[in-house]
Amino acid sequence: MSENKIPYKIYLEESEMPKSWYNLRADMKNKPAPLLNPGTLQPMTAEELSGVFCEELVKQELDNDTPYFEIPTEIRDFYKMYRPSPLVRAYCLEEKLGTPAKIYYKFEGNNTSGSHKLNSAIAQAYYAKNQGLKGVTTETGAGQWGTALSMACSYLGLDCKVYMVKCSYEQKPFRREVMKVYGADVTPSPSDTTKVGRRILEEFPGTGGSLGCAISEAVEVATSTEGYRYVLGSVLNQVLLHQSVIGLETKTAMDKYGITPDVIIGCAGGGSNLGGLISPFMGEKLRGERDYRIIAVEPASCPSFTRGEYRYDFCDTGMVCPLAKMYTLGSSFIPSADHAGGLRFHGMSSVLSQLYADGLMEAVSVKQTDVFKAAEEFARVEGILPAPESSHAILAAVNEALKCKETGEEKTILFGLTGTGYFDLVAYEKFHKGEMVNTIPTDEDIRKSLDRLPKV
Amino acid sequence: MSENKIPYKIYLEESEMPKSWYNLRADMKNKPAPLLNPGTLQPMTAEELSGVFCEELVKQELDNDTPYFEIPTEIRDFYKMYRPSPLVRAYCLEEKLGTPAKIYYKFEGNNTSGSHKLNSAIAQAYYAKNQGLKGVTTETGAGQWGTALSMACSYLGLDCKVYMVKCSYEQKPFRREVMKVYGADVTPSPSDTTKVGRRILEEFPGTGGSLGCAISEAVEVATSTEGYRYVLGSVLNQVLLHQSVIGLETKTAMDKYGITPDVIIGCAGGGSNLGGLISPFMGEKLRGERDYRIIAVEPASCPSFTRGEYRYDFCDTGMVCPLAKMYTLGSSFIPSADHAGGLRFHGMSSVLSQLYADGLMEAVSVKQTDVFKAAEEFARVEGILPAPESSHAILAAVNEALKCKETGEEKTILFGLTGTGYFDLVAYEKFHKGEMVNTIPTDEDIRKSLDRLPKV
Repeated sequence: MSENKIPYKIYLEESEMPKSWYNLRADMKNKPAPLLNPGTLQPMTAEELSGVFCEELVKQELDNDTPYFEIPTEIRDFYKMYRPSPLVRAYCLEEKLGTPAKIYYKFEGNNTSGSHKLNSAIAQAYYAKNQGLKGVTTETGAGQWGTALSMACSYLGLDCKVYMVKCSYEQKPFRREVMKVYGADVTPSPSDTTKVGRRILEEFPGTGGSLGCAISEAVEVATSTEGYRYVLGSVLNQVLLHQSVIGLETKTAMDKYGITPDVIIGCAGGGSNLGGLISPFMGEKLRGERDYRIIAVEPASCPSFTRGEYRYDFCDTGMVCPLAKMYTLGSSFIPSADHAGGLRFHGMSSVLSQLYADGLMEAVSVKQTDVFKAAEEFARVEGILPAPESSHAILAAVNEALKCKETGEEKTILFGLTGTGYFDLVAYEKFHKGEMVNTIPTDEDIRKSLDRLPKV
Repeated sequence: MSENKIPYKIYLEESEMPKSWYNLRADMKNKPAPLLNPGTLQPMTAEELSGVFCEELVKQELDNDTPYFEIPTEIRDFYKMYRPSPLVRAYCLEEKLGTPAKIYYKFEGNNTSGSHKLNSAIAQAYYAKNQGLKGVTTETGAGQWGTALSMACSYLGLDCKVYMVKCSYEQKPFRREVMKVYGADVTPSPSDTTKVGRRILEEFPGTGGSLGCAISEAVEVATSTEGYRYVLGSVLNQVLLHQSVIGLETKTAMDKYGITPDVIIGCAGGGSNLGGLISPFMGEKLRGERDYRIIAVEPASCPSFTRGEYRYDFCDTGMVCPLAKMYTLGSSFIPSADHAGGLRFHGMSSVLSQLYADGLMEAVSVKQTDVFKAAEEFARVEGILPAPESSHAILAAVNEALKCKETGEEKTILFGLTGTGYFDLVAYEKFHKGEMVNTIPTDEDIRKSLDRLPKV
C-alpha cells in the first residue's frame, strides 16, 4: 500500500491530547434525571453524595451545565503513560469482508488493566488523593475495573481495597494476582470484614457472591472508615465525563485526516465506553452541527436498552445505593451465568438512557456465540485478541460493513475496541469446544424483576 | 511537565518505519562461525539447509556480506498492524529511583503474541508461503513463539503445527487456547504423531516433555511431510536479521529527538531480542563511528555467556540439529524447573557469541527473585506488567541507573522491554507468596554437561 493513504494506526502527538474532558450533559436539552436518595426518594444533594464520593467528583457528578472540565496535569501525565490510544484503520478486516465500507476502531486495550477503565480510575483516585484521603474501596466482578483502580492507586500511593465477587476471585486467579502486583488489598466477597458480608455468609454459607453484595461491602467500608471513599467504574455521570477522552482523541485524529464517521458503534454495559466514545460526536448532533448514526450494542442475555423499561431503579442488587433513572431490567435481574463476558449490569447510564429515550441513538442486542465468532475472525485478521465485551461492537460493525457490501455504500464505520481478552481464555475455550450457549431471559424473567421494584 | 520535553512515548510515523532489515554480520570483521552438519561436521551447505528451511531464509542465514535486505511489502503491511512499537521515556521510573540517568525502553509487548517474536514469525511464514509451501512446524515452550507463529500463519493462510512441551501444554492452557484462536494445530510433546515422539513415550511413558524433544518432533514432521518446513524463533542469523527492525526503529526515533544512548541493555536467551535491539548501534561501533556499552542480561540459572564455553554445540537437546559455534552450557544442560521465565536456552546466537568473544559487549547474570522484585516495581510506576524475560533487562537498567545516582552521571540508558507478563501470573503469585527460589547450577553441573559434547 502506498505511504500517502491513511495509516494503519493514527497516533496523536502528545501535544494533541485533550486538555479538558467534555461534559456531554451541557449540550443536552433534556438533562439526565438526578440520582435519588433511597430513603427519602428526593434528589441526592451534594452533601449526601460527599459521604460516598470525594468532593470534586460530586461536583462533576451534579454539574449538567459546564461543557469542559480541565484535566489536572497529574492525570494528563498519567494518561501519557498509556495514551494516546491508537485509532486503527481496519484494512485487513475490510479486505477479509470484501466491503466497500471503511472501518476504524479506537483501541483502548494497550495498558495492563486491558481496557478503557483506567481513564476514569486515575481520575477518581487522583481526586481522592488530592482531598487528602487515605484510600478508596470498590467492587469488581470480571476484574478489569479492579485492576485499573489498583494501577491508579499504586501510582498515586493511595490505599485500594477491592471486593471481588468470590466465584471470580476463585475462577480468575490471574486477575486477582495482577491486582496484588499493584499492591491492592483484594478480598473475596462476601467476607467477614463487613457487617453485610457476615450477614450474608451466615444466611448463605456456601455462596459464590454477587456484584450487588460486593458493592454493598465496598460502600459499607468506605462510609464507615475514616479517610475512605467509594469509587465506581461505570454508569455515573462523572465516569462518562472522564471517558470522553476516548471520543475527544478519536475526533481529533479523524479531523486531522479529514475522516467523518457515518456510524458510531460501541458495546454497552453500564455505558462508560460508549458514552465516552460518542461524546464529541453526540455533542455535534445535539447542537445540530452534524448527524451521526449511533448504535449501542448489548448482550441478548442482559438487554437493558432493547427490552428494559425507562424508570427509576437502584444501581445495586442490594438496593442500598441511590436510584438512577435509566433503562433497566430491574435491580434484582441477574444475567445467566452462561454469559461469559462483562456487560452484565441490569441498568444503563442515565445520560445514555435519556439520549436513547430522546431518539438520538439506537440499540441492538446480539447473541454471545455470534460475538465469539466475530471475535475470533477479528483476531485472525487484525492481530488483536479482543475482550468479549468489545467483541459485541466488532460484531455490530461487521454486520454494518456487510450491509454496505450488499448496497455498495462506502460508509465510514467507527467502533470502540475497549480491551483485550487475555484473561477471558476460559470463555474462548468454551466457544471452541462448542460448549457455549445463549441464554436469553424470557419476558417473564424481566417482568418479575421489574415488578419487584418500588414505585417511584 | 511541559510539552516541549521529550514525550513519554515516541511513535514513528508509518513512513519512517524501516524498509530494510540490517544484517549486522556485514559489518563484523570476525564473522560468526558457520553451522555444521551433525553427520559430517562440515559447514552446512545451502542445499542441506533447504531441506529444513525455505530457500529465501537459507540465503539470509548464510549471507554474511549483504548489509541490507529489503522487507517485502506484505511483511511491512503486517508490521503496520502492530508496529511501530513505542520508544518510551521512563519518566516515572526515573523519578521513583531518584536518578539523574535518562531511561528509555523499546516496548515490544503491544501485540497479542505479547512479545517481539512476531517480527520474525511473520517473515518466516511469509517466505514459506511465497515458496508455495503448505505449512510450517515449530516447537514452543512458554508459548510466546508458538503464539506469534500462529498469528502470522493465520494471517497468511498457512498451516501451522506447533509441538508444545507437554507440561507447558497442561500448565499453560491459556497460551494453548490463544494459539487455537489463531487456528494452529497444537500437539503436546512427546506425542504419538512422530517416530521420535513414540520412541520417547515408550521409554518414558509419564514424561512432561522437553524443548529438545519438541524440536525433534517438529523437525521430523517438517522434513518428512511434503510442503512443510521447520521454523525457529531465536538463535539463528535470519532471526536476528528480522529482529533488527527493533533496533532500527529505536535508532530512528532517538536520532529524531537527538538522543544518544550510553548504555544499551537487553535480556538474552537465544539472543533474538538483544541482537535485534543492538544491531544498528553495534553496526556503528563495528565501523568505528561511535562507541556504546552493550550489556546482555541472562538468568543466573542459565548463564551461557557468563559461565559457558565458546565452542561448537548442538542447537537442540536431542543432538540431531546442526551444530553452532556459541557460548554454551552444553546441549544436555537443562535449567532448573524453579526458573520461571524463558531464557532457558543452553546456548546463544553465534552472532552475539562472536561479538562477545571479541570484547564488543558485556554480560551479567541476575537472580530471578531480584528480577521479579524489579518487575513489580516497574509495573507499579510504569503501568506495564512485564514478562519475566524482559524483567531481566529492567533489573540491569535499574542497577545502572542507581550507579548514576551514586556518581551523579546523567547517562542515557536504553533497554529492550520485550513483552508482557499476562501469561506469567503463576510465577508472579509464587513470588508474592515467597515461594520463589534461585536455583543456580554448580560448576560441576555445567562441567558435566559440557563434557558430554563430542569434540569438534
